[in-house]
Amino acid sequence: MSQEPHLTFDFDALGSSAGHLIIPGGSDHDELRIPVSSINRGSGPCVLITAGCHGNELEGPVVAQRILEWLPVHLQRGRVIVVPVINPLALRSFTRNTPVDGLNLNRTFPGRRDGSITERTAYAICRLLLPAADVIFDLHSFGPLWNFPPSTTTIPIADAKLLSDTVRVAESFKLPMTMVWEHPEAPGMFDVIAHNGGKIFVCPEFGGGMVNPKDLDIYEAGVRNALIHLELIGGESEYPLYHEKRSGRLLETRRSSDELSSPVAGIFEPRCSVLDEVEAGDVVGRIYPLGDGASAMIEIRAPNKATVYAVRSSAYVDAQEQVVLFARDMTDHSLESLRLSVIPSA
Amino acid sequence: MSQEPHLTFDFDALGSSAGHLIIPGGSDHDELRIPVSSINRGSGPCVLITAGCHGNELEGPVVAQRILEWLPVHLQRGRVIVVPVINPLALRSFTRNTPVDGLNLNRTFPGRRDGSITERTAYAICRLLLPAADVIFDLHSFGPLWNFPPSTTTIPIADAKLLSDTVRVAESFKLPMTMVWEHPEAPGMFDVIAHNGGKIFVCPEFGGGMVNPKDLDIYEAGVRNALIHLELIGGESEYPLYHEKRSGRLLETRRSSDELSSPVAGIFEPRCSVLDEVEAGDVVGRIYPLGDGASAMIEIRAPNKATVYAVRSSAYVDAQEQVVLFARDMTDHSLESLRLSVIPSA
Repeated sequence: MSQEPHLTFDFDALGSSAGHLIIPGGSDHDELRIPVSSINRGSGPCVLITAGCHGNELEGPVVAQRILEWLPVHLQRGRVIVVPVINPLALRSFTRNTPVDGLNLNRTFPGRRDGSITERTAYAICRLLLPAADVIFDLHSFGPLWNFPPSTTTIPIADAKLLSDTVRVAESFKLPMTMVWEHPEAPGMFDVIAHNGGKIFVCPEFGGGMVNPKDLDIYEAGVRNALIHLELIGGESEYPLYHEKRSGRLLETRRSSDELSSPVAGIFEPRCSVLDEVEAGDVVGRIYPLGDGASAMIEIRAPNKATVYAVRSSAYVDAQEQVVLFARDMTDHSLESLRLSVIPSA
Repeated sequence: MSQEPHLTFDFDALGSSAGHLIIPGGSDHDELRIPVSSINRGSGPCVLITAGCHGNELEGPVVAQRILEWLPVHLQRGRVIVVPVINPLALRSFTRNTPVDGLNLNRTFPGRRDGSITERTAYAICRLLLPAADVIFDLHSFGPLWNFPPSTTTIPIADAKLLSDTVRVAESFKLPMTMVWEHPEAPGMFDVIAHNGGKIFVCPEFGGGMVNPKDLDIYEAGVRNALIHLELIGGESEYPLYHEKRSGRLLETRRSSDELSSPVAGIFEPRCSVLDEVEAGDVVGRIYPLGDGASAMIEIRAPNKATVYAVRSSAYVDAQEQVVLFARDMTDHSLESLRLSVIPSA
């Protein structure tokens, strides 16, 4: 494997241009050709919009395609690079990880030049797309097994100014939730590589993964709102309608204390909905063990007062598998403590 | 394999009794113990309620468990046998088919005494549970990949009286839809074996497979309504609330003309909802091909005036894969033509 990844077109040309990011072939897979579009008006920030990192999260690729339909007419300054599907092999198999090497692209950054196909893809993105960007929107969904409100998320960032700038851009999407998410699996995430380069990285997350028209409209409106905030396009931003409200909240969720798991294997029946406010002791779900014996139904209760952020759906869950994720309003104090709890990334 | 399937308790005892249906072990799998409950008040019809035939359809097993909580107190006459999970191996792997032999239990009836584990299960059900029943409710869901209104369904039946009796019991659930479903894969279905024995067989189907509390309440209310109609329990039946309505419609759908498929592989975006009334030419979905090239989005249109019965969700679909299923109001004329189109089953 001696080939270098490359782009098939003049990537920095002014105006609209499009071509492919070429991931060189290797022993595990032939060359991959990933469609890339660039709309460049010169001075101003550069936003990189990526989607399709996980192949079972389909809203992002559709939204990225939709944005490409109107962006060339509306972009006034700066530059937007759009890659609707950064992991086409995972998308075609409708799986989170790449089927060829079993790797999660979002745990593989910065990748390896001579690695497996997922590692070569991460390497090419870092080498050829990331350097041009000041701001990255990596469009995710929360998979088909969760109910989840439309949100923008960021992991905690050690650099106080970068965290504050990131939260401001995340809030500019005007989605119902902006979430600072304590995440234990940081190594290899696209976020961390971007933070190390001093870049703003926002990850919108949408629940359900059902690709329904209402969610797509909210998702697209969120990206448009952020581009208005960055003064790349004109227009007025507004909160999209969700659960009969137009509003946004800044929340935090912590791995240690905000996850509720099933004590046993069984069918999980939710007894709460996303954005419900619950008190300690409220029943939020039931497990039906349905084993060999006549095991009784087990109630699952909220450990603390909290907001329901995500609810598991459609699943036979294993013992200790997560079924509800809670969140709490972010305060200046909690923002500070989150900063202190992370390993410096820059 | 010389063992016979058997029940571990006095199956025909009056009152409430419970135990296991034993599926003998074989070369592919050890003995299976399937929990069975019987509540017997003597004279009156016997209803067999089965669920968990397909392991990724989880509403039925929860509803069957819930019914067992109140039925012993409320059953006034006749008998109800409840088997919350007839295919526990598929349930535990959250797959439609049994993982051990790859078979679809609902295409395996009447099974084989010395067959694989799925065939032995079908054999045991036919041998030991089915003979006692006059009426069977086999609780299904429409899997996690479809949006679908709560419905009771029957396949067409050659025997005019049995079809009419079946439709009457199906309508007694008072779900939003009662559907006569022309189905090409009849061989091996539980329905067909029951029809051959002159029994009423109703298959409730629920969409989404998300196990949400509202769907479970509608599902449970439907079964209760049918038991009231059969005069096994007291009380008043009423239409559950669905899409802000309390109503029921009798519809038909035919394999040949009511299925709409994607012309190409891509991400399907629904542009219609279940129960929408569409005219010929209305856009009901879009496909985003997202291949190597810059393929444009493709609109999918309704071929005829119809009611939207089921909409695909959450999926990268292949070319020729079904994305929308339509239905039309059932008329006396169409009921007659459906009867003529089926192969006599008795």
